[in-house]
Amino acid sequence: MKYSWIFILCFLLNLPSNIFSQDIRWYDPSDKIEDQIPIFNFSGQGWNHNALESPFQRLPLSAKKEVRNELWKLSRFSTGITINFSTDASTIYVRYKVEDYIQKPHRAATGLSGIDLYVTNQNHETPFWCKGKFQFGDTIVYTFGHLNSMNVEHVNSDYQLYLPMSCAIDWLEIGIPENATLSGIEKDIKLPIVVYGTSIVQGSAASRPGMAWTSILQRNLDREIINLGFAGNGRMEPEIIKYIADIKASIYVIDCLPNLIGVPNQELAQKMEMAAKMLKKVHPKTPILFVQHPGFPQELVNKSSLEKVKSINDLLEINYLSLRKIYSEGIYLLSKNEIDMCMDCTVEGTHPTDLGMNIYAEAYSRKIREIFDFNQKD
Amino acid sequence: MKYSWIFILCFLLNLPSNIFSQDIRWYDPSDKIEDQIPIFNFSGQGWNHNALESPFQRLPLSAKKEVRNELWKLSRFSTGITINFSTDASTIYVRYKVEDYIQKPHRAATGLSGIDLYVTNQNHETPFWCKGKFQFGDTIVYTFGHLNSMNVEHVNSDYQLYLPMSCAIDWLEIGIPENATLSGIEKDIKLPIVVYGTSIVQGSAASRPGMAWTSILQRNLDREIINLGFAGNGRMEPEIIKYIADIKASIYVIDCLPNLIGVPNQELAQKMEMAAKMLKKVHPKTPILFVQHPGFPQELVNKSSLEKVKSINDLLEINYLSLRKIYSEGIYLLSKNEIDMCMDCTVEGTHPTDLGMNIYAEAYSRKIREIFDFNQKD
Repeated sequence: MKYSWIFILCFLLNLPSNIFSQDIRWYDPSDKIEDQIPIFNFSGQGWNHNALESPFQRLPLSAKKEVRNELWKLSRFSTGITINFSTDASTIYVRYKVEDYIQKPHRAATGLSGIDLYVTNQNHETPFWCKGKFQFGDTIVYTFGHLNSMNVEHVNSDYQLYLPMSCAIDWLEIGIPENATLSGIEKDIKLPIVVYGTSIVQGSAASRPGMAWTSILQRNLDREIINLGFAGNGRMEPEIIKYIADIKASIYVIDCLPNLIGVPNQELAQKMEMAAKMLKKVHPKTPILFVQHPGFPQELVNKSSLEKVKSINDLLEINYLSLRKIYSEGIYLLSKNEIDMCMDCTVEGTHPTDLGMNIYAEAYSRKIREIFDFNQKD
Repeated sequence: MKYSWIFILCFLLNLPSNIFSQDIRWYDPSDKIEDQIPIFNFSGQGWNHNALESPFQRLPLSAKKEVRNELWKLSRFSTGITINFSTDASTIYVRYKVEDYIQKPHRAATGLSGIDLYVTNQNHETPFWCKGKFQFGDTIVYTFGHLNSMNVEHVNSDYQLYLPMSCAIDWLEIGIPENATLSGIEKDIKLPIVVYGTSIVQGSAASRPGMAWTSILQRNLDREIINLGFAGNGRMEPEIIKYIADIKASIYVIDCLPNLIGVPNQELAQKMEMAAKMLKKVHPKTPILFVQHPGFPQELVNKSSLEKVKSINDLLEINYLSLRKIYSEGIYLLSKNEIDMCMDCTVEGTHPTDLGMNIYAEAYSRKIREIFDFNQKD
């Protein structure tokens, strides 16, 4: 009788009927188990959980007093963070609650507060996307089913769960059936790519977190990416560069121009010099990639849009050339031409859709592969 | 004093301050002026406005009693309809009210009830996208500004306004500054492409109406498209085929498989035979293009998804081959392989994002160009 009511309740709430039942084991992936390889390892964060206020944040607690309040709020958003684990479960459940959710007319809930799951197993090299049924409410629930139908040996597969791009996570739990096995994945030892930027880096307006360009790039290059994109607040500030210099990286990407249009020339020059100086002081051999503005799609119609972008891009290039003279190696440029954004690549003139995100990711893949190849040859 | 209050009100409502002022002339584009070339011509509709219940609908009033109620409701949605006009206005305003707006977690408001504007003028062949600032509320307001900064001679440019994809329009007005000129555009005499299909044809989950694959195709081929996509209701039904046969077209596209998965083999065969028979009877020389299911992105992980698609696609191909024997000419197939949808092309496993829409449009462009070229050679 009790189960019938649960079934009816679930039906009414459009939830899978076993979501409250006893046959799912729920885990808080941020729980620490001493002296063990963690079953859930977090990727995309520059600091250990001990240094953070919450396990789903992107800047350490020490930054709270040092960075602007607006930026601190955005650093609580979980974009670019993935939770990695291995299981033979045929269904994976994720339930979570978010804070500071902001509805925007040009963004869907799946892009603002949705999650994404990809799987890798013995049979394929690149991660495959997993379909999840979702239910948005006070608690958001995703159910990823039919995960084992191609996995005939029922061995564990490696999963990568992408967390929401534009909200803070209050709590999150991962559930698997009682009879499924679960194991940890060794953390990748390759040095991560650190990206400092704007809302575009943060993932707006990708349809889901796996489609932010940093997520696509991470799968393309099989390399951890630490996403320090802050919507409207990617201003190449010393207090952020200081924290970035904390992270031992394979490359530092500085993609802040979309938030610096209108900044006086002298100020941009100072910002770039400061960024290069602070990073090169600690990591003299690590490449720094400065990125031009991708342009606005309306620049075909609106002359002032075209001119604003040309002006700031020209200045970035001049400063990039100066910095190359100061630092004999390791200063790079990704140009607007190399990004080659298409006219129909944004939803509202600023934020790339999945179409634009894919173009961004391709341009970054080419450039970063080139830089890595060049540095390996040395 | 009065103007200050209007200014403050507009500021608070985040509306352009001249939206209520006297210097905008507002037009109801559906107003008829006898014996004149209409200033606003509608494209993407198979019937004259006289035959419609409202000027923004996609099936004639006579269909109301003949088609399922659910389908009739969807036919009131304005997807694929564009309003075309010519002006030298530097700003174009559009305000409108919609009905039956349904919020979905995987779709943004810009995709559900937003509009889109493209411009063509003497300087370029392909239409350019125009940035609009939008305000969603009881009345939705778009302001497209800076339209003349590249148009140094201030001649009229041709505009194409794409109407919302997933709601019915209650009323809509287009505003231009008092001093701007406005003129009609001769309607294209080339026969339109008629597309009958599902939610994917209707435009879900494009980020804005200009990014539905039918809209991209229409710009690619410079050819009117009549969009008869009905979310969840593209079932290859005789009552719809009957109405399609009303329209003199350059090609009939039947892309219904995503809504026919699970339909018994015999039934699909009958549907295809019926469709070909009804259309060929009236338009023996007009090509008919049957389209396979694009596949599900989760088919890499989920065997049953893969099998369902293979099964219905195989059947479509068998029936297509039979029909080619019956009708010596003009039966074509767009295959899953030719569509070549990518794994990351949907938002939730079913509906293409702009990335998927672009791939669809490219596949259709290639195929339809091929068919048109072939038929011209005859």
